[in-house]
Amino acid sequence: MTGAATEERDERVTLDLLTKKMDDFARERNWERFHSPRNLLLALVGEVGELSEIFQWKGEVPKGLPDWKDEEKQHLGEELSDVLLYLVRLSDICGVDLGKAALRKVQLNALKYPVNVQNNSNGDGGSEQPSD
Amino acid sequence: MTGAATEERDERVTLDLLTKKMDDFARERNWERFHSPRNLLLALVGEVGELSEIFQWKGEVPKGLPDWKDEEKQHLGEELSDVLLYLVRLSDICGVDLGKAALRKVQLNALKYPVNVQNNSNGDGGSEQPSD
Amino acid sequence: MTGAATEERDERVTLDLLTKKMDDFARERNWERFHSPRNLLLALVGEVGELSEIFQWKGEVPKGLPDWKDEEKQHLGEELSDVLLYLVRLSDICGVDLGKAALRKVQLNALKYPVNVQNNSNGDGGSEQPSD
Amino acid sequence: MTGAATEERDERVTLDLLTKKMDDFARERNWERFHSPRNLLLALVGEVGELSEIFQWKGEVPKGLPDWKDEEKQHLGEELSDVLLYLVRLSDICGVDLGKAALRKVQLNALKYPVNVQNNSNGDGGSEQPSD
Repeated sequence: MTGAATEERDERVTLDLLTKKMDDFARERNWERFHSPRNLLLALVGEVGELSEIFQWKGEVPKGLPDWKDEEKQHLGEELSDVLLYLVRLSDICGVDLGKAALRKVQLNALKYPVNVQNNSNGDGGSEQPSD
Repeated sequence: MTGAATEERDERVTLDLLTKKMDDFARERNWERFHSPRNLLLALVGEVGELSEIFQWKGEVPKGLPDWKDEEKQHLGEELSDVLLYLVRLSDICGVDLGKAALRKVQLNALKYPVNVQNNSNGDGGSEQPSD
Repeated sequence: MTGAATEERDERVTLDLLTKKMDDFARERNWERFHSPRNLLLALVGEVGELSEIFQWKGEVPKGLPDWKDEEKQHLGEELSDVLLYLVRLSDICGVDLGKAALRKVQLNALKYPVNVQNNSNGDGGSEQPSD
Repeated sequence: MTGAATEERDERVTLDLLTKKMDDFARERNWERFHSPRNLLLALVGEVGELSEIFQWKGEVPKGLPDWKDEEKQHLGEELSDVLLYLVRLSDICGVDLGKAALRKVQLNALKYPVNVQNNSNGDGGSEQPSD
């Protein structure tokens, strides 16, 4: 990763693309036999554990991670990706269209937590963050 | 969700779109103050817990979930989405371009686990699934 | 671990003993400053991830783990212990008497899920395992 | 929970006692058939998720939880207990003596992270908290 281009966001990465890449990856390595729903779920939990380890002894961490070294941020990106890739694969193996489901969930959340006009005008008036 | 169109995969959902939707969602509700990295990480862990609860008493589950009711599958889609949405939000708050990071991780994995020709010809010859 | 004695269960290990050992351990190493509630919680999540990795590619596993090698079982014991030790430490740092809380929770569960006489006489008649 | 006695720690709760209580509980309800290793592991992950939800929107939390209401602390005790009870049950079903394994793990940790005299005399001189 060199050059200014790497600083730009890649806006084109779809869940569908990642789903296909994971499917190709597993097929090419004859790993489909390992990719049962609960195997993938436990692999996901394992990756969430590795993600948590990055944050575990740090106390509170500010947005943007201003004090983190480049290699720490890169490691973080890898662990976030591992969680994503198993999530994408788990969804595919379960027959769930994750992109469609996520758009629908955002809509459901918007109905569940309607925007309160007061929230925007007044820092104190914000609704409680939900537990779900 | 009605009609044949809902059966088609939505191939256009990008991580970038979900990132923007989550950002809008938080801003409109004045929830940005809650969205620190470790808050979001713990929320993600909470959602992984809810996802696990769906599978916890089922024993092994076959691919495609052939015996699940529609409402169970819909619930599963919602929990998978909750994990994804917090993952997307956590990445954004940490300044990680999750789509780019995921593409890069797929490439790293391909280098780490090269395709073995034997894997394709012989069920027994497959390499061990890695623990990572 | 040698000799017949190692095969006997150690029936005397109290949560209180482990709590004290963890407190001594942290104090002797000047690690108390790291042991905030959320740091310990994330460390616990990390260990649950490592525990999950042991089971992730195995498919369903029978009780007693009859086909596992001794070193796999030993590794499992270590990961189960890591979860326990952070759980004990987290409870202590939060001011929760985990032993007392656990006894109380068993009683609450017994009230929530009363024994159904049919359960004992009839394999089919058993109540559904709760999701909680 | 009434009276001054409830404030005392219960120092007698052994892992063996909890193991027996969980075994009785499952047998009386004909739930043994649900308690396979991976079912219990996923149930454990579910409870870790519920534990995380308690802490998720709180930002950093000081030791002893000085600002928490009694009912919040009680809820916390219940979730910590749920994690413990499934951990105890999982260990038993896997044939692991959790008490013995935990004592052994504390010893292994002491060998891995020897006490450094400097740690005690100098806040800065403390060794780094390990990632494991």
